[in-house]
Amino acid sequence: MPSRPAPPSADLIARFAAIVGGRHALTAADDTRPYLIEWRDRYEGVSPLVLRPGSTAEVAAILKLASETGTPIVPQGGNTGLVGGQVPDESGTEIVLSLGRLDRIRAIDPAASTMTAEAGVILDRIHDAADAVDRLFPLTLGSQGSCTIGGNLSSNAGGTAVLAYGNARDMVLGLEVVLPTGEIVEGLRALRKDNAGYDLKQLFLGTEGTLGVITAAVLKLWAKPKAQEVAVAGVATPADALAALGLAKTRAGAQLTAFEIMPRRLVEFYLAHQPGSRDPLSTPAPWYLLVEVSVGTGLAEARALMEAVLEDGLAAGLIQDATIAQSVAQAKDFWRMRHGMSEVQKHEGGSIKHDVSLPLSALPDFLARATEAVERLVPGCRPVPFGHLGDGNIHFNVSQPVGGDKAAFLAGWEAMNAVVHGIVTELGGSIAAEHGVGRMKRAILAGVRSPVEMMLMRRLKATLDPAGILNPGKVV
Amino acid sequence: MPSRPAPPSADLIARFAAIVGGRHALTAADDTRPYLIEWRDRYEGVSPLVLRPGSTAEVAAILKLASETGTPIVPQGGNTGLVGGQVPDESGTEIVLSLGRLDRIRAIDPAASTMTAEAGVILDRIHDAADAVDRLFPLTLGSQGSCTIGGNLSSNAGGTAVLAYGNARDMVLGLEVVLPTGEIVEGLRALRKDNAGYDLKQLFLGTEGTLGVITAAVLKLWAKPKAQEVAVAGVATPADALAALGLAKTRAGAQLTAFEIMPRRLVEFYLAHQPGSRDPLSTPAPWYLLVEVSVGTGLAEARALMEAVLEDGLAAGLIQDATIAQSVAQAKDFWRMRHGMSEVQKHEGGSIKHDVSLPLSALPDFLARATEAVERLVPGCRPVPFGHLGDGNIHFNVSQPVGGDKAAFLAGWEAMNAVVHGIVTELGGSIAAEHGVGRMKRAILAGVRSPVEMMLMRRLKATLDPAGILNPGKVV
Repeated sequence: MPSRPAPPSADLIARFAAIVGGRHALTAADDTRPYLIEWRDRYEGVSPLVLRPGSTAEVAAILKLASETGTPIVPQGGNTGLVGGQVPDESGTEIVLSLGRLDRIRAIDPAASTMTAEAGVILDRIHDAADAVDRLFPLTLGSQGSCTIGGNLSSNAGGTAVLAYGNARDMVLGLEVVLPTGEIVEGLRALRKDNAGYDLKQLFLGTEGTLGVITAAVLKLWAKPKAQEVAVAGVATPADALAALGLAKTRAGAQLTAFEIMPRRLVEFYLAHQPGSRDPLSTPAPWYLLVEVSVGTGLAEARALMEAVLEDGLAAGLIQDATIAQSVAQAKDFWRMRHGMSEVQKHEGGSIKHDVSLPLSALPDFLARATEAVERLVPGCRPVPFGHLGDGNIHFNVSQPVGGDKAAFLAGWEAMNAVVHGIVTELGGSIAAEHGVGRMKRAILAGVRSPVEMMLMRRLKATLDPAGILNPGKVV
Repeated sequence: MPSRPAPPSADLIARFAAIVGGRHALTAADDTRPYLIEWRDRYEGVSPLVLRPGSTAEVAAILKLASETGTPIVPQGGNTGLVGGQVPDESGTEIVLSLGRLDRIRAIDPAASTMTAEAGVILDRIHDAADAVDRLFPLTLGSQGSCTIGGNLSSNAGGTAVLAYGNARDMVLGLEVVLPTGEIVEGLRALRKDNAGYDLKQLFLGTEGTLGVITAAVLKLWAKPKAQEVAVAGVATPADALAALGLAKTRAGAQLTAFEIMPRRLVEFYLAHQPGSRDPLSTPAPWYLLVEVSVGTGLAEARALMEAVLEDGLAAGLIQDATIAQSVAQAKDFWRMRHGMSEVQKHEGGSIKHDVSLPLSALPDFLARATEAVERLVPGCRPVPFGHLGDGNIHFNVSQPVGGDKAAFLAGWEAMNAVVHGIVTELGGSIAAEHGVGRMKRAILAGVRSPVEMMLMRRLKATLDPAGILNPGKVV
């Protein structure tokens, strides 16, 4: 990694600005501010320049100039990342490259079930465009109204549909990428089988803009389900939840499209703070599951499948109680509760967060051990682990003790992380499940990846970005 | 790439042999021969030594010694590859590294739906082990009785189940790999969401043993379908077949587990040469489809779904005639016909083969243009394109003219390849869909990949295998 350069000179800023045209080169503090602050206010960067190119060629010209002049570049999509990967550091030497103006859907092919979209297209628009041709793009995230597909792919986003459809990595057939040197990798292929040489797109999926800048992608589309059912079910323990998941997968296979878990404590937070909310279960349970099935046939088949899934769990003594949504509105209420699980923690004071994943069979053990460990570390703290049971990804968040001091609690962030991550690692899990590494977890990466793996990552970085100008200080 | 070394000395051979023990170091011609000949007899290599290590540590020691001495190593699984990627060249300088003795299934976890298997486990055994715990490993290939999972992953194998389950790349969660330097990448993670740094396993999946040697993998398992139905349907044109596929995907979604296409001419070959075979359709059609649906519920649901799929196609005027298998035996007969499509060509003289894929919507155009082009090139030749319509992968094979000279026809192999590959490339397809590049297509790779892509591939090779000892002369 080269030593950190000085802030770009006025002359250099003018040369960068000339590439995109003055109107799209932001320098005034009021204009640049939205690009410099992470939405959870954890990171606030400093930059003299935000570039908003309007074409792949402009992105290429920017990166070529950056490589030639050793100017650090921070690519940014919708600025919704949760690990600081998309914001510049505080040095004032880094330039932000916002992909937001690359917002064309270049092509959509219902027969081939593909869509070619530029990096800056917002995820909601991708959903709508697929829907308009009776297809589905299944990536589903809380931030889908503002995150961009380029950011989703660069960070290999997860979300609630991974169980049935995989991660963002699994939803892409081809990529157009600009290398740090400004060379363009023209890989917009729409093929479901292609072994003509190395699969180069894998170098850029999930590498958080450190090896190249994704400018467009050929996305896979799926058949749009004709009918869905959503239910909330109560279970006594995570082990019961896991066993119920196994039965549901056996019964519904790929038609099981969500299997989420929430603890009673978090449901209580939601009922207390969300106006008009109601407990979906008549008898409160220690853990709540949100279950969704999707079918290509019709409503009767969806209902029959959901009833069979729940009956399997009830008959095995795993599910205590269950409610199937009786209307589209009620189904939305169930999902609103699930999506409100993160937001609602704000009402209960400080919250220390962990985005971790475990081998499915290790989840009950992890939840028991991590809960005990953080309660020992901070007596009175309130663990509220929730998330994507179906794919093993738990947001092991911990709310502060009632009436305690928020700042004092949050000062223990790293200490609590260390305890939880230690248990995760011991059980073969990941400390960075769906949010990535970014800036937040860079320092601890070497603690969970072997020296050989760290060596390989650094070699890839040096091979693809020899000048070290692309998103420095992130991931590796 | 360093210049080709001399054959290994007797001393060096002894040092390699000492790593695995004399019994597992084959040097006699009778012993090594099965490892040197590709099963279609297209390639016959020369090697003084075949090493059969019994552990990952032995693989590591072999590669370390190879790197130190500049000895080229050719990794080999079940020796079923179709592009010569697994056999040594004719120089006598290369040593074969057979992974066949790494044949343990290390762990199987039905609750997590994962299996950890060593590289040399034969695919059929993976199937059986999954089945024994009520799970499915969906990779389905003609060679599954002898190919190994290590080879499947190294070549990113495809097969008939890609439509619903993806390629081999999509069926793996973690890898254990030995680098050309002998270092071991310990990546046997069983996680469905993991963004803790670069996804290094992608470097080794589908790179045909040129960047590392896969020694073990954590495989994803799926819910085992409770019931399946198989049907054969007749359609008039590839365009009708494609439209019927669209309807079938809309109706059945991920429950559509196969959608294969065969031309009438190839069905006639099969009926003529396969004792006891019968035409599945009462009225012959220009194109035959094999359609399979799989459900997690029961036989009645499977039958209802298949009937709905076929009725959709019949009502739209796409399907002319259809037969649902009335027994497990008849379903097997339908699949036997499909799997016999390759073998049966041998009875009709010489056959020139192409393993290509197209964007789905370009398939009808491709088939029309390629058929016309090869018939113009070799009057009287008989194109018999068949394969995986559901994923766009067509084996565009061409049988020689009736009564023509086989050798003369086969002498036109490269010329015909050039014509067909030209059309494939023009339509945005791949000249190496599921069989890979290996040795056969290495020389033509630069014609279908951009200079930037070739540069990236060569840089990856140089970065991971600086001594150039791993499977030289393959892929890049």
